[in-house]
Amino acid sequence: MEIIPEVLEMGRRARQAARVAAAACGGMRSKALALMPQKLHDAAERLYAANGEDMAVAEAAGTDSAKLARLRISPKVFDYMCDRLVEVAALPDPVGRVIEGHVRPNGLYVSKVSVPLGVIGIIYESRPNVTTDAAAVCLKSGNAVILRGGSESRRTNRVLADAMAEAVVEAGLPADLVQLIDSPGHEGAASLMRLTGYVDLIIPRGGKSLIKAVAEQSLIPTLKHYEGVCHLYLAADAPFEMALEVALNSKCQRVEVCNALEKLLVDAASAERLLPALAEAFSAAGVTLRGCERVREILPDVAVATEEDWQAEYLGPILAVRVVDSVEAAIDHINSHGSGHTDGVVTESLAVADRFAGAVDSASVMINASTRLSGGGDYGMGAVVGISTDRIHARGPVGPAELTTTKWIARGQGHLRN
Amino acid sequence: MEIIPEVLEMGRRARQAARVAAAACGGMRSKALALMPQKLHDAAERLYAANGEDMAVAEAAGTDSAKLARLRISPKVFDYMCDRLVEVAALPDPVGRVIEGHVRPNGLYVSKVSVPLGVIGIIYESRPNVTTDAAAVCLKSGNAVILRGGSESRRTNRVLADAMAEAVVEAGLPADLVQLIDSPGHEGAASLMRLTGYVDLIIPRGGKSLIKAVAEQSLIPTLKHYEGVCHLYLAADAPFEMALEVALNSKCQRVEVCNALEKLLVDAASAERLLPALAEAFSAAGVTLRGCERVREILPDVAVATEEDWQAEYLGPILAVRVVDSVEAAIDHINSHGSGHTDGVVTESLAVADRFAGAVDSASVMINASTRLSGGGDYGMGAVVGISTDRIHARGPVGPAELTTTKWIARGQGHLRN
Repeated sequence: MEIIPEVLEMGRRARQAARVAAAACGGMRSKALALMPQKLHDAAERLYAANGEDMAVAEAAGTDSAKLARLRISPKVFDYMCDRLVEVAALPDPVGRVIEGHVRPNGLYVSKVSVPLGVIGIIYESRPNVTTDAAAVCLKSGNAVILRGGSESRRTNRVLADAMAEAVVEAGLPADLVQLIDSPGHEGAASLMRLTGYVDLIIPRGGKSLIKAVAEQSLIPTLKHYEGVCHLYLAADAPFEMALEVALNSKCQRVEVCNALEKLLVDAASAERLLPALAEAFSAAGVTLRGCERVREILPDVAVATEEDWQAEYLGPILAVRVVDSVEAAIDHINSHGSGHTDGVVTESLAVADRFAGAVDSASVMINASTRLSGGGDYGMGAVVGISTDRIHARGPVGPAELTTTKWIARGQGHLRN
Repeated sequence: MEIIPEVLEMGRRARQAARVAAAACGGMRSKALALMPQKLHDAAERLYAANGEDMAVAEAAGTDSAKLARLRISPKVFDYMCDRLVEVAALPDPVGRVIEGHVRPNGLYVSKVSVPLGVIGIIYESRPNVTTDAAAVCLKSGNAVILRGGSESRRTNRVLADAMAEAVVEAGLPADLVQLIDSPGHEGAASLMRLTGYVDLIIPRGGKSLIKAVAEQSLIPTLKHYEGVCHLYLAADAPFEMALEVALNSKCQRVEVCNALEKLLVDAASAERLLPALAEAFSAAGVTLRGCERVREILPDVAVATEEDWQAEYLGPILAVRVVDSVEAAIDHINSHGSGHTDGVVTESLAVADRFAGAVDSASVMINASTRLSGGGDYGMGAVVGISTDRIHARGPVGPAELTTTKWIARGQGHLRN
């Protein structure tokens, strides 16, 4: 496949702009972000008109109502976008942190400092608030961003990107720090994924099929979020109330999200004590249980969980429940069936908590806390561009600090190597 | 291409072993490393015999003498390998560092800790000391390693890998933490690069063609070292003695390595003052200069540097020299022609030093120090598995800390999401 010349040129310009941003101070980047809400307000009329056009085209094309709802910029969504920009502007600068530094025995002073990653490509689906959210997180850390949103929201995204670029220029930075590919068709995204040398990282945001396609096609490293097959282990000593509350909240607070509970592991020693109450509570919450044979001995009405159930990410009101013999069995089950996103335990035992936290190989481990509390907001990261289930570069919520790399600076007084 | 079943099985076993290692304490990993020199001594007779066999086969196949020299385990190489293992054993544990931690307003305690990356594949060429070096760095950070050395050293590598695995077992850890693919042919390496889900990172070590091939073929993320097109900028105020010494040492201390100087940028204001003495010194050191037109005005005997010269990594006694008008021009030249490995400046000006260090987009920036001082040893990292010229995951020397990822641990008292 040929790279579209316009996209190649965007890559070149992004690299140049990224160099300027990397050498500029953080105050200019924050200023650009802080100016954006005003620029969005100035463009509000055009924005709502463009969004209305996108909606009309999508509706005429028979787009389903859920997708249409995601596409729509309501005044509430508009305010949310502006608030996030203000929030990100106020975050501490992730660039220029001295990660380590010391004087070598020969007097050479060496330090490792955080610097912008460079140029980041974001490939995403309909929600237009990703346009401002993702651009803000990238810009906060001194990166240039090339956005490739869904074709269905391209008119909306154009107004958003132009308004953001205006703010960038007013802050004294190059407009090319925020660019948008809005040509229809797949060639734009396909070209972006091939801009080796110009783009340093591709972040796909959207459904599993989008992420899989990007991961397979991209010639540039990707940072991706696959699945959240999240587990909660109720230990032998799990306190009754806490076990129920944490399990219910983990599953039901919102069922369709990546850190919602999908599998409940109940220790054999607490199964008879907890399962009947859990079954009742989940039933009242409209959640259907599927159980292993040992669960069904206690709850005969529960449907049998098949082998597929242990790997499934339902993102809906279904929960698979299994009785396990020990914390070791719970750890084994999670490490072999889970997706390494978020897994939790309810226990009063320090030994069980420490063993679980040490051995469960997941991006987030929750001890006596809802799996729904895993994420950038609840970890105090301010804003994130997604959650990585990869192990390389960044794992878990991806905020401004995760979009930096490092530079070693060595300072001597004419130091030589012998 | 089909994955060789034996290699797939190695991947499965490595993943299992990595989980055990991740949950084990650092003392066990250090013990395994500390036991290795004794195991190598116990196996010395077999090792020298195997190495002799590898040498004989390579010699019979017409291998050139430089390659044969690299393949040979001399008593000096043997001692070096043992010393490095002892050194790595004594390094601080890179696993379990609390990278950040704080209590959220709702009382949830969150912390981000370093954990092993998982399973690392190393694909490398002849030098057998890579076998022990790379395995030691991987193991230090709690990873399992699958080694794929050059076919020409496979008998040697087998003895080394077995001795290391013995030490691992004696320390109470799974033997599968150190595995070696020693089947002849390319299928072993090709299979290793396809073990998605079992291998988390591939590190190629060797010549550019090996690294390029691995980067292109691997389905697993790679961490790689391409080129070191290193620059030194002698500023307008560069002190005469220091300018000469740093330039000479950067180029001549060893010419064939990645952090050796390849391009010298001389400020127009210091060209007449410095160039004649530089030319004399480099000539005495056997280094041939190629210059831009402005260099040739001062040094008419110097050959002209072509456009290719500005991108070339000579790894030999050639140096391209250019006159630039300012620190900004030097920065532009470096950022557009360099490889982002190591670039330095000689100056007494704080403003020039800060501007250079801030704007040059390289893994290492040297201020008044030889480019040859960039590296894990000189930065105090103890041991490295290579130097990354990538921007993702790790940039610059790759030591044990760079072979970790992170895990968030959140601890509450029944915390729920509202």
